[in-house]
Amino acid sequence: MARNTHVAADHNAPPVTRILGKFVATHPSQGWSREVDHEAHRTFMNWLGCAVGAAGHESAVAALAAVAELQPAPQATVLGRRDKVDMASAALVNGITSHTFDFDDTHLKTIIHPAGPVASAVLALAEHTGASGRAVTDAVVLGIDVACRVGNAMYPDHYDRGWHITGSTGMLGAAAACSRLLGLDEDRTTMALGIAASQPVGLREQFGTMTKPFHPGGAARAGLMSALMARHGYTSSAKALEAPRGFMQVISAKTDWNEITDELGSRFEISFNTYKPFACGIVIHPSIDACVQLREQGVKAGDVERIELRVHPLVLELTGKKEPSDGLLAKFSVYHGCAAGLIFGRAGEEEFSDHIVTREDVVALRRKVVATADANVDEAASIVKAVLKNGREIAVTVEHAIGSLQRPMTDANLDAKFHALADPVLGAAQVGKLIDACWKLGDTANVGTITALARP
Amino acid sequence: MARNTHVAADHNAPPVTRILGKFVATHPSQGWSREVDHEAHRTFMNWLGCAVGAAGHESAVAALAAVAELQPAPQATVLGRRDKVDMASAALVNGITSHTFDFDDTHLKTIIHPAGPVASAVLALAEHTGASGRAVTDAVVLGIDVACRVGNAMYPDHYDRGWHITGSTGMLGAAAACSRLLGLDEDRTTMALGIAASQPVGLREQFGTMTKPFHPGGAARAGLMSALMARHGYTSSAKALEAPRGFMQVISAKTDWNEITDELGSRFEISFNTYKPFACGIVIHPSIDACVQLREQGVKAGDVERIELRVHPLVLELTGKKEPSDGLLAKFSVYHGCAAGLIFGRAGEEEFSDHIVTREDVVALRRKVVATADANVDEAASIVKAVLKNGREIAVTVEHAIGSLQRPMTDANLDAKFHALADPVLGAAQVGKLIDACWKLGDTANVGTITALARP
Repeated sequence: MARNTHVAADHNAPPVTRILGKFVATHPSQGWSREVDHEAHRTFMNWLGCAVGAAGHESAVAALAAVAELQPAPQATVLGRRDKVDMASAALVNGITSHTFDFDDTHLKTIIHPAGPVASAVLALAEHTGASGRAVTDAVVLGIDVACRVGNAMYPDHYDRGWHITGSTGMLGAAAACSRLLGLDEDRTTMALGIAASQPVGLREQFGTMTKPFHPGGAARAGLMSALMARHGYTSSAKALEAPRGFMQVISAKTDWNEITDELGSRFEISFNTYKPFACGIVIHPSIDACVQLREQGVKAGDVERIELRVHPLVLELTGKKEPSDGLLAKFSVYHGCAAGLIFGRAGEEEFSDHIVTREDVVALRRKVVATADANVDEAASIVKAVLKNGREIAVTVEHAIGSLQRPMTDANLDAKFHALADPVLGAAQVGKLIDACWKLGDTANVGTITALARP
Repeated sequence: MARNTHVAADHNAPPVTRILGKFVATHPSQGWSREVDHEAHRTFMNWLGCAVGAAGHESAVAALAAVAELQPAPQATVLGRRDKVDMASAALVNGITSHTFDFDDTHLKTIIHPAGPVASAVLALAEHTGASGRAVTDAVVLGIDVACRVGNAMYPDHYDRGWHITGSTGMLGAAAACSRLLGLDEDRTTMALGIAASQPVGLREQFGTMTKPFHPGGAARAGLMSALMARHGYTSSAKALEAPRGFMQVISAKTDWNEITDELGSRFEISFNTYKPFACGIVIHPSIDACVQLREQGVKAGDVERIELRVHPLVLELTGKKEPSDGLLAKFSVYHGCAAGLIFGRAGEEEFSDHIVTREDVVALRRKVVATADANVDEAASIVKAVLKNGREIAVTVEHAIGSLQRPMTDANLDAKFHALADPVLGAAQVGKLIDACWKLGDTANVGTITALARP
């Protein structure tokens, strides 16, 4: 698989983000010539005249009608909280929280986490409009199909060059799903996709910061607003995705159009969705799985001299942090994942908490993990060998981790995972009812019954 | 100047935007297998559990605190209207209207229209917080400096590959300006720039649709929200602009870091801002100017056999529409611009209205304009020759159009332009007061006095 073919990366750039941050925060007021200040007045006045002059234009009317739909707030639930906010803000925040633990779903063909942008937008809109669970289910299937098909067409080049593909295709999925839920016709749905195409969200450089989970949230909000604008007649290019200066050709050197059109309506990309058993990036999962298996074979942390991994180079590129100092950074450390798997036999959100990540025995075992990049090892696999202090060696090869398409999470696994996540927030009894309601989503008359159960 | 060096454009892509639009709008409800529908339930439930589980995370708290600042709406004026909306929506709509007529300012080194994203975000925030005109002026100067310096570093490659650079740098300018207005410190301003870096807005394919003016509006909203999130502790990469997988290296093959750091704090990019005399793309201006000069030399439309233009290839690439069918498309027609200049001696918004664009004499003259691309002609220039029916030829060469840095609009020109735009909306008397207030912006205790005058 071709990787990093874009351009040679420049690793010696000056710290311009900080330089500009300091400049903006500290440059003295009016710290420039009279001419510069006068130019600021000219700029402001010319801008104001243009805005006033176009105040009655149909584009202003359409955009205003769309933003007017956000009032009066509160409209939609912030899941797991008592707050209700306007539906665009709910889409944003729920998109953030659903990806915060890096524990959500993964479309393995593209590494897209499709539910974050799509379901966050759909449920917020559906709660406000009182839509049925059937309508929500349809919108989720179709929205995910759009995001993942566009992702298939651009992956891996688009991802390799640095886009966080979840947010940079997710706004299309969210726009499609919300258009469907609003009952927009073919033309307006096309316009919604076009408006969304101008708003990709997400850079891989943000991994390890709060802006990573912002990406699906921002994409959810952008897609929802695109659908609302299209509903009120806002226009875009009907070739916004495919034109030479449209979305796909601008942000990817690979544009395999057949990935979008082949078997459209008969093959659904949601069929290839998977659910994480471990609360971290998917590329670490085979290694954690292998260490859990070592534990099941009787290997104890105290007996270990060394853990040797052989993994695809991408694993170390994405998750090669050797000494993570907190829980968030630990999600990008295959070393920590292995230590957690061997010590605890699991790697849920608790095992990525700050106090576990800094615990002495965890740090000690983490330092005994030695990883080797090997392009001959599949991205989905991991070859792990425990070398014990007594000289014994125990090897485990994982070809497909638990949670993969080949070894999927069962419905019961998903129930248990849901309880572990939600019980501390809502209590086990209410979570039981919420799980029941989720399994009956397609038959629910009004999704308000689900959002009510998702509030403490 | 290197142009179109990115990749060979694919002009034969199937119409996937429409294909997906039709699919999403028309595919039957539950038009898939039971397995697919079950997977949708698994996807929804897994997503919901993740969102509920992270509901108390600090990133959720920070994001919620930011969106809470948008309530209660109304907070900020939609310029030229009686409406007040939340400040993020005001930033969006004012960004749209200020660019709707393609009549706003231009930083000629990059073709960025900097006030749209920056001033739209700043004024909405400033009105809500009751900020002084001095604070607004400072924020505008600094925000424009950030957007244009980043633009300088990436131009022309970034623009050539298809980004509408106004919206794809504007979110940084808006984030910087709003951070300044909020009084964020150096660290939080850096975080705001980082959050904004994940949200470039704008594709050149959208030119000719409402989504073109959406770009500065979307960038204004994104920048404002980024600053609000950073204010409440939301984090991003402090290397979001310059890292190998950060904003600039991901979306541009040219990254001239010196353009950002050289003379920072002593050279201000707003000094290179210009204001359009004609209500269309800047590349047409030299040709319109030349035709206005032909008219002043006595050339009448009825006497013309042919108008010959020699212009830089970019002019025809951007504005080569031969037969624009309405006012919006006419803005991308150098042919129409020339006809308007010769017939009316001006090319304001009125001359780009539907009824003028379709008027018989205008269409007839437009068809007599013959344009030739010539890479030896500067982008700022136009060589025009009128060939009359009597065989006479009159040539005009414009090296720098009116409105350029070399031949800037005077303050009186700006007053007249403002009146022409705003009088129909607010009435001449109120506009006179508003113009006075704009010239005194830096001394205004509270910008509410300006926004009050901008409402009918």
